Amino acid sequence: MKPVRHLFGIAQLEAEQIEYLLTLGASFIDLSRRPLRKAPTLRGKTIINLFFENSTRTRTSFEIAGKRLSADVINISAATSATKKGESLLDTAQTLAAMRPHVLVIRHSIAGCCEFLAPYLEGTAIVNAGDGAHEHPTQVLTDLLTLRAHGGFAGKVITMVGDISHSRVARSHLLAARKMGYTVRLVAPKTLLPAEVERYGCEVFHDFDAAIPGSDVLYMLRVQNERLTSSCCFPSIREYHEAYGLNRQRLRLAGEDCLVMHPGPMNRGVEIATDVADSVQARILDQVEHGVAVRMAVLTTLCGAHAMEEEA
Amino acid sequence: MKPVRHLFGIAQLEAEQIEYLLTLGASFIDLSRRPLRKAPTLRGKTIINLFFENSTRTRTSFEIAGKRLSADVINISAATSATKKGESLLDTAQTLAAMRPHVLVIRHSIAGCCEFLAPYLEGTAIVNAGDGAHEHPTQVLTDLLTLRAHGGFAGKVITMVGDISHSRVARSHLLAARKMGYTVRLVAPKTLLPAEVERYGCEVFHDFDAAIPGSDVLYMLRVQNERLTSSCCFPSIREYHEAYGLNRQRLRLAGEDCLVMHPGPMNRGVEIATDVADSVQARILDQVEHGVAVRMAVLTTLCGAHAMEEEA
Amino acid sequence: MKPVRHLFGIAQLEAEQIEYLLTLGASFIDLSRRPLRKAPTLRGKTIINLFFENSTRTRTSFEIAGKRLSADVINISAATSATKKGESLLDTAQTLAAMRPHVLVIRHSIAGCCEFLAPYLEGTAIVNAGDGAHEHPTQVLTDLLTLRAHGGFAGKVITMVGDISHSRVARSHLLAARKMGYTVRLVAPKTLLPAEVERYGCEVFHDFDAAIPGSDVLYMLRVQNERLTSSCCFPSIREYHEAYGLNRQRLRLAGEDCLVMHPGPMNRGVEIATDVADSVQARILDQVEHGVAVRMAVLTTLCGAHAMEEEA
Repeated sequence: MKPVRHLFGIAQLEAEQIEYLLTLGASFIDLSRRPLRKAPTLRGKTIINLFFENSTRTRTSFEIAGKRLSADVINISAATSATKKGESLLDTAQTLAAMRPHVLVIRHSIAGCCEFLAPYLEGTAIVNAGDGAHEHPTQVLTDLLTLRAHGGFAGKVITMVGDISHSRVARSHLLAARKMGYTVRLVAPKTLLPAEVERYGCEVFHDFDAAIPGSDVLYMLRVQNERLTSSCCFPSIREYHEAYGLNRQRLRLAGEDCLVMHPGPMNRGVEIATDVADSVQARILDQVEHGVAVRMAVLTTLCGAHAMEEEA
Repeated sequence: MKPVRHLFGIAQLEAEQIEYLLTLGASFIDLSRRPLRKAPTLRGKTIINLFFENSTRTRTSFEIAGKRLSADVINISAATSATKKGESLLDTAQTLAAMRPHVLVIRHSIAGCCEFLAPYLEGTAIVNAGDGAHEHPTQVLTDLLTLRAHGGFAGKVITMVGDISHSRVARSHLLAARKMGYTVRLVAPKTLLPAEVERYGCEVFHDFDAAIPGSDVLYMLRVQNERLTSSCCFPSIREYHEAYGLNRQRLRLAGEDCLVMHPGPMNRGVEIATDVADSVQARILDQVEHGVAVRMAVLTTLCGAHAMEEEA
Repeated sequence: MKPVRHLFGIAQLEAEQIEYLLTLGASFIDLSRRPLRKAPTLRGKTIINLFFENSTRTRTSFEIAGKRLSADVINISAATSATKKGESLLDTAQTLAAMRPHVLVIRHSIAGCCEFLAPYLEGTAIVNAGDGAHEHPTQVLTDLLTLRAHGGFAGKVITMVGDISHSRVARSHLLAARKMGYTVRLVAPKTLLPAEVERYGCEVFHDFDAAIPGSDVLYMLRVQNERLTSSCCFPSIREYHEAYGLNRQRLRLAGEDCLVMHPGPMNRGVEIATDVADSVQARILDQVEHGVAVRMAVLTTLCGAHAMEEEA
């Protein structure tokens, strides 16, 4: 297997590498359920979380993943960043790399910024924690780990519903589906679909109900309220919810083996009804839990510290 | 003794449990005075500080308490929280709980939010670090530890002065006084007293000087400048200070055995004169020091790691 | 040698103390280049970064320095500080000192605030991480360590160019130059020079090109765009760059042995051309790397934990 040196996106990964990360991730799930949630795996490693967009969930997940493996974790948020003083993104990244972290976890609004930065940051591995509408690989690895724990993903149909055009999660899943042998259906109004969506070779639906039969997972994407009303595709949140929200009726249509997933944060009453979010078919909190495990796997792999020894 | 599984407030605690936390807290005071301020007590434990209101003092106190006991501590502030994206408080808390912290320390403007959240967060202990005008139990435990170090609190008279109506500290002290056998006097203008204050069974004064004789502690509460002038109870800060501020004359009236306390941050020249704040009778910095020790006790108790072993 | 108990500025230090810190700093460079970047030197020590001005670079440098030496590091930023609630700087500092950190690293806009605070904070060492336009000693120690790694600083000519009047780095270098035996030349328009600059005994130039011959280092200072245009000294950034920016022609004039330094963050195209910033003569990223090492030396010295043992 080719070693994973950076994690820019799903596009770069081979199926074998994805399988490796998932297997390693699965081995870490138990660590966060023990009374003592600590292993020495990444002792002496430095991880910097460099977040230009706020994301409590993803930043905290990486921070906990790193700390439970005994790494030193440093958080930097855009609000306090030198970019406010006119420093370029490259200079900010090179400056941090000169402090010799092993891993730089980056979230930024610019698609492709991680690939751009990597060649300039010798000795530092980069993890893409979401770059614009481009990719969000650790979320997809998280989702696959959750599916693996609930019957696997090979041959399954994941129906993703909502604001596809702005969703890096959807994009990463489309790339992963081909490699890992599952099918992605996209459901959205035309105004929330990217141009040339067909080239991904996925099925596209504008009618949610038509996409439900045969789905193994209904994967609901967050819709920003502002976008709904300002871009005029829907006169109100209520109408969006009627057309594209997951409610009890649609869940019944999907059947009781169908799982419900969401990358969070949820807008209850918009893309998902509150009783569905709390139903036994929802795997939304499992996704959060598995997210920590997958990020442990990613950090461990990039640090080259694959051996996981239990602490004395 | 019934084990303490969450710390929602003083209301929930029995006298025996309070005594237990104080005794454990006292045992931790020395740890922060040694050359090496570290014990392995909470190694492998994860503590999340989730602060929806800013509080440098309280957050830092919990953070230092956790880190000195070798816990992993993660800070989340409201400014970067997903609640800004419309996520509900319950979803935020459940998401964090799914990352399997042992303790979630919460400060929020909603009274009662900790009790509300707890049943939904299986496996995670909650500490109330201040919920609206409701309770602030670790501050009261801090104060009691300070009094214990200076002659005890049983039978003593604590005279609390200032903005009682918005004070969770006053409320928690009223609850603690009954259980622990001390007396609370409240001093405030009518506009800064809560409705039905009498039902707490405490003495209420509108004249500060009348409340001073017999007081063992003068406990000054912070008054927000905005509140003083906007709510019209006082035409100016100077007049508030004359009526309800603790100055040298009033301290002399109280006698030289009377202690001065304040939960901070102080508004010097408003509720307390600067020479009084710096006088030998002031125990304000002792409170800060004991606050770290009490929070070590609370975190240790909730983590179920009562044994404190010195580090090799 | 007189022990270093606080680091207020270069002014307080003797040459011998500076040499000591540089030698200790040099010994720490390697630590951040090893696979495992961790030593137990400051285990059990608590360091608080108290930043009233944002500085990702400096705060992160201190944080990494502390964590790699196993200290507990707590960050406090002005945005969340109690000073917003009207607390005085002294009360904030005393409150934090009562939590018994070993070191308090302070950045604040008030010149001299560290000397002012120190006598009130018994048991806590203070590091000045930049106080107004006064001093920034760890930056100067950083620069000297970088020069030491590239041929030494004794007898050398460092030509500092830009906004001298607001630069604490320039001021600290002027003080260090006398003690350590190097020469500082200042280059700036009159509007960006402090009054009575001559009393520092340095050479002052208004013409950049005239100052270049004989320079061993061209040290470019950041110029704030707002200041350039609002204070009317330059009609545009382009004209500033032509008069005082370091471009390829000026670097050629300086010769290929001349080093280029910058304390960051850079404004490319303003005080420094982008090809110069990226040239082989630039030591800007070395400065960042050495900054971590120097701060390790400062923290270790102040904590009195001079012995550096490798971790088992």
